[in-house]
Amino acid sequence: MSSMETEKGAEQPAAVAAGSSNYSCIRADVGLRLLLLAASIVAVVLMVTSKQTKNIPVPTIPGLTIANPAKFDDSAALVKGNRFAELTIEICENIDVLGLYSIITTIASLAVMGKSSVPAKYFWILAVHDLLVLGLVAAATGTAGGVAYIGLQGNSHVNWGKICNVYDKFCRFIGSSIAVSLFAAVVLVLLVAINVYSLYRRTPGSSVW
Amino acid sequence: MSSMETEKGAEQPAAVAAGSSNYSCIRADVGLRLLLLAASIVAVVLMVTSKQTKNIPVPTIPGLTIANPAKFDDSAALVKGNRFAELTIEICENIDVLGLYSIITTIASLAVMGKSSVPAKYFWILAVHDLLVLGLVAAATGTAGGVAYIGLQGNSHVNWGKICNVYDKFCRFIGSSIAVSLFAAVVLVLLVAINVYSLYRRTPGSSVW
Repeated sequence: MSSMETEKGAEQPAAVAAGSSNYSCIRADVGLRLLLLAASIVAVVLMVTSKQTKNIPVPTIPGLTIANPAKFDDSAALVKGNRFAELTIEICENIDVLGLYSIITTIASLAVMGKSSVPAKYFWILAVHDLLVLGLVAAATGTAGGVAYIGLQGNSHVNWGKICNVYDKFCRFIGSSIAVSLFAAVVLVLLVAINVYSLYRRTPGSSVW
Repeated sequence: MSSMETEKGAEQPAAVAAGSSNYSCIRADVGLRLLLLAASIVAVVLMVTSKQTKNIPVPTIPGLTIANPAKFDDSAALVKGNRFAELTIEICENIDVLGLYSIITTIASLAVMGKSSVPAKYFWILAVHDLLVLGLVAAATGTAGGVAYIGLQGNSHVNWGKICNVYDKFCRFIGSSIAVSLFAAVVLVLLVAINVYSLYRRTPGSSVW
């Protein structure tokens, strides 16, 4: 990944002291933000399409089966309040927010990319916002991961049965969605890191490392 | 919280161009790191002391009860592999690492505090490490929170029963531990933010905001 790519930008007339004061990684920044947008779209699509219905035999009345859907559905889950997917709502809502956030910041980065000199304030503001979003995405991925792990392994000590052997497609989709969210969290870490690096390179007397 | 506290440090003889090049928030940084250390110790103590044993009647043989402990215990949980606390191991191991990390970085910050001028590289390196630790702590807190939420509410759709009505003290301790971890994550966000702000204030031409 070209995250350490250098984009110097044209020299500003009233250039300030340090030679590296125009240093920025805007191109890498824009690339990573597009990656983030793609990841958030994929994660939402996986969540939304994860519905799976299984006919589960009712033990007492042989022959009678009930359709028992495991699906991700915001409103239904909120009304019924007892689905496996309940906790994964959180991650999906966060991912929706993440998609919107990545669109806004990509536009901001593209706008700044055209300028001859990017103000340092831009990196500072962006780094702090990326940081907050990173906290939310990492926590949501952890939450969904924890719940999905119980679905996969169960917990016999407290009688929580596995459900992924029944709802296989559902679990595969949710699992993939969690993997994509984890990837998004890593991209956010890289984004904060390159923005902080851009700031660092602009301080007087900074070296490449 | 004095996170925006200013510490100018003595003027360096060969001071570089920009007036704000010695700006740093080292005192706030050290304070937050000590807070982080305290939080990680409290969280570990809560996890370790959360053991609770309940006599649960065996339904088929009236009068016979089995002692059924719910406790956090690394080795036991790893051997049995099926306790409620199993997933919370992850967060506790991360908290151990967090405690060690906060000790090391507090010492580093104290060492740097004595110097007349803190090099910009210090903030850059610290911000990136804090960032990685933040990702781990946020994800671990989310994981433990997700599992604890099922313990509290259960999930009747997939027959996962509540357990916190039985193991009340255990759940209170684990819950408090999760709250403290969340607090640690917030402290880490503040730490990254003030280090990035220190870097920003050192760039030529930066303003207070």
